[in-house]
Amino acid sequence: MSAAIMRAGSLTIIGLGPGDPAMLTPQAAAALAAATDLIGYGPYLARVPARPGVVHHATDNRVELDRARHALTLAAAGRIVAVVSSGDAGVFAMASAVFEAIDHGAASWRALDVTVIPGISALLAVAARVGAPLGHDFCAISLSDNLKPWEVVEQRLTAAAGAGFVLALYNPASRARPWQIGRCFALLRAILPGSAPVIFATAVSRLDEVVTVTTLAEADPAMADMRTLVLIGSAATRVIARPGSSPWVYTPRRIAAA
Amino acid sequence: MSAAIMRAGSLTIIGLGPGDPAMLTPQAAAALAAATDLIGYGPYLARVPARPGVVHHATDNRVELDRARHALTLAAAGRIVAVVSSGDAGVFAMASAVFEAIDHGAASWRALDVTVIPGISALLAVAARVGAPLGHDFCAISLSDNLKPWEVVEQRLTAAAGAGFVLALYNPASRARPWQIGRCFALLRAILPGSAPVIFATAVSRLDEVVTVTTLAEADPAMADMRTLVLIGSAATRVIARPGSSPWVYTPRRIAAA
Repeated sequence: MSAAIMRAGSLTIIGLGPGDPAMLTPQAAAALAAATDLIGYGPYLARVPARPGVVHHATDNRVELDRARHALTLAAAGRIVAVVSSGDAGVFAMASAVFEAIDHGAASWRALDVTVIPGISALLAVAARVGAPLGHDFCAISLSDNLKPWEVVEQRLTAAAGAGFVLALYNPASRARPWQIGRCFALLRAILPGSAPVIFATAVSRLDEVVTVTTLAEADPAMADMRTLVLIGSAATRVIARPGSSPWVYTPRRIAAA
Repeated sequence: MSAAIMRAGSLTIIGLGPGDPAMLTPQAAAALAAATDLIGYGPYLARVPARPGVVHHATDNRVELDRARHALTLAAAGRIVAVVSSGDAGVFAMASAVFEAIDHGAASWRALDVTVIPGISALLAVAARVGAPLGHDFCAISLSDNLKPWEVVEQRLTAAAGAGFVLALYNPASRARPWQIGRCFALLRAILPGSAPVIFATAVSRLDEVVTVTTLAEADPAMADMRTLVLIGSAATRVIARPGSSPWVYTPRRIAAA
């Protein structure tokens, strides 16, 4: 054994949770503390305190695959690399991009030490914030048609709402995609009662958190932007009014026989 | 102000995560440390270290609504109550039961200080363990027909698999419900390719963890028990073979136009 032996690199893909440091798991914190290189979308990297000697590689939001290949290249060169995502890295975030890069990349990347560390996803954080809207069967769908045809989004919304799932909508809107959430509401109004609860939640657990509980009949597409998660209840989802406080929303565990 | 003023009670519903203490959030740990009364299913309560003066109310697995009412009664009497669930309390766990009890209970319960603290759910922990199988649209479904007709389960499985969602199956089997997971596989084999990846994961992050990656064609219902989460990929989900190691599984973010 030589003291100069090359240290084996590694790649850890880390979910930072929704933003509040009290929701970052100790496992994720330990992995962040061990890294020599941090890679991610700028605003997420900014949540990780700088440490001497640790390189921050901030990137734009729309270059996931390039970012994944960069991370793998660094790990293959012996660096201790952490790729960070908001929420959970496996839910509409960086983990899938890293494995896609491995799948189509150098055979040697398959021998790398790659670990995914789960985080509190936006859908769990938002649900907890308003009660228990995900208390029964639910779906998570990305409304973005950057990576899939809009027809597929509509088919999935129709199938899931028609079958009684509660819906968690990721990527509901952005400046470049302003109309999808309105079309989604129009489509769902033909399937679900107007009284179905709708929750718009932006920046949950952060200082600028905004959470609004409304109904499908009254839901305004303008309330969603690229940082918003939208939850849409099923016909079974209930709202508990509270005098002087925001209501609770929950989906009962029981469905009676027809 | 009197020193003898009655302290207002509270109720916190806490997700403990899958089992590894390194996956318990600091927020959840702080809430556990503040509680005077802990309520939950015995094996979950056993994960929380005993402290002097803290009352543990261990209950059976099948009495969620009684347990919820007990917790609310204690909080209304001024106790600092924590209801604990494994994983995330809002996903097929105690949070929905607590809000159901409030909805149908004393009006004064609506004025109680009730908080839900999210946890790393089993579906996130299992997905992270094998790669990124939830990298695109997914559904979570309970296979239990204790609280809903089996016909509803079949309709939802059919709708979700047919629309291309990855499926996370909770409560796949128990001694009293041995046949549902086999029927589920039979139904899905008529919709999905036999090559669709299937993951059986039991006790993830605990010492007795067992994770198996197989295919829908070869999936054996006997591999699931009441502690197992079953993930079923879509036709798009891919397996990355690794010589000498267990494979990675991921679902690509992109769906090409037809």
